[in-house]
Amino acid sequence: MHTSDDEAAPPTRTERRRQRTRTRILEAGEQLMRERGVEAVTIHDITEAADVGHGTFYLHFECKAALVQPLIEQRAERLHEHVDRATHGERDPALRLATGIRLALSSIRSDPLWNWYVFQSGTPFRRLAEGIGAPPAEDMNRGVASGRFNVRDLRATWTFVDGAMIGVLTAWNRGALDEDAAETTAELALRSLGVPPEEAAQIAHEPLELH
Amino acid sequence: MHTSDDEAAPPTRTERRRQRTRTRILEAGEQLMRERGVEAVTIHDITEAADVGHGTFYLHFECKAALVQPLIEQRAERLHEHVDRATHGERDPALRLATGIRLALSSIRSDPLWNWYVFQSGTPFRRLAEGIGAPPAEDMNRGVASGRFNVRDLRATWTFVDGAMIGVLTAWNRGALDEDAAETTAELALRSLGVPPEEAAQIAHEPLELH
Repeated sequence: MHTSDDEAAPPTRTERRRQRTRTRILEAGEQLMRERGVEAVTIHDITEAADVGHGTFYLHFECKAALVQPLIEQRAERLHEHVDRATHGERDPALRLATGIRLALSSIRSDPLWNWYVFQSGTPFRRLAEGIGAPPAEDMNRGVASGRFNVRDLRATWTFVDGAMIGVLTAWNRGALDEDAAETTAELALRSLGVPPEEAAQIAHEPLELH
Repeated sequence: MHTSDDEAAPPTRTERRRQRTRTRILEAGEQLMRERGVEAVTIHDITEAADVGHGTFYLHFECKAALVQPLIEQRAERLHEHVDRATHGERDPALRLATGIRLALSSIRSDPLWNWYVFQSGTPFRRLAEGIGAPPAEDMNRGVASGRFNVRDLRATWTFVDGAMIGVLTAWNRGALDEDAAETTAELALRSLGVPPEEAAQIAHEPLELH
């Protein structure tokens, strides 16, 4: 009970200042890493740009990679909103999941931070998969619950689709796949969830209008 | 033309000796790495066990990981023969592919060298996928050619299935999946190739009799 009290309590002035400092470090880090690439930026560069002491950085983050983590989470969150807009609020889990897969693959591919996180950060595959997978997983759960998807083992199926996404991203990044690899991936994922091939193809190739 | 002449020519005595030395290093390395784990074995341990000089090792292999590579290729080759036996020579690409996926996943999981290669060697995903994928890929090609599989983009589809296998292996290794994860993976792969769900389930759960 005291936990929810803690959560409900308004932040103290100290806590608000702490949050502001954290945000400043995050924003400075993000800007620098986008400009110069993750590897080229040092923690010193970031503390200089954020105008905080070196030790302050470590009060908030363990290392440079720990700074990237919340930025990725933020983008995964935005991806979710993006799916809402692109599907015009339609609730068909097949359409939402396909859209989520397409947007996730193209977002990661075009985002240097996300790309670094997936391919160079040394982050274990499991956490990668969780990072990419969080929003689509929700649509998958809903589709199974409603009978839209026909799945015996939800966890294994989600692992299957998640691994497939990382495999496709890897090959796509080195130029081994066509431009519509994201659509193909969405189509195959829907098939594996029991959506009939013809319908899967149609859903996975719906035009994406992004407002 | 002189290349095929070279290939056809019987090996010289020097070449035969070279091959024997290579085999001795490989066998000594394999035995030690299976006994003690890959990380614990040094190149010195291997050259001692194979009774060759330190420099001789480097005439044949660049590093310890380069020694593991041909051992994995050998096992991938054996996997192929294994599929032949387990399918009793049946040629249905769906049955062969499902069997290949099941045997590949359980072989890698139970083989400490293969496991190390996939998860600790730092081998890029692409080469991993090629290593796992070689035999099943052949059945996949045949299934597409014969119309058994319904696939628009073969390369993207293969990348999808390959990535899925690595994703499943990762989760399986950390105990996050049920014992029948290999069957589930085979079933989902067949679905993604256009095999109807009911048939995919049946094929993926065929009893495997291994003689």
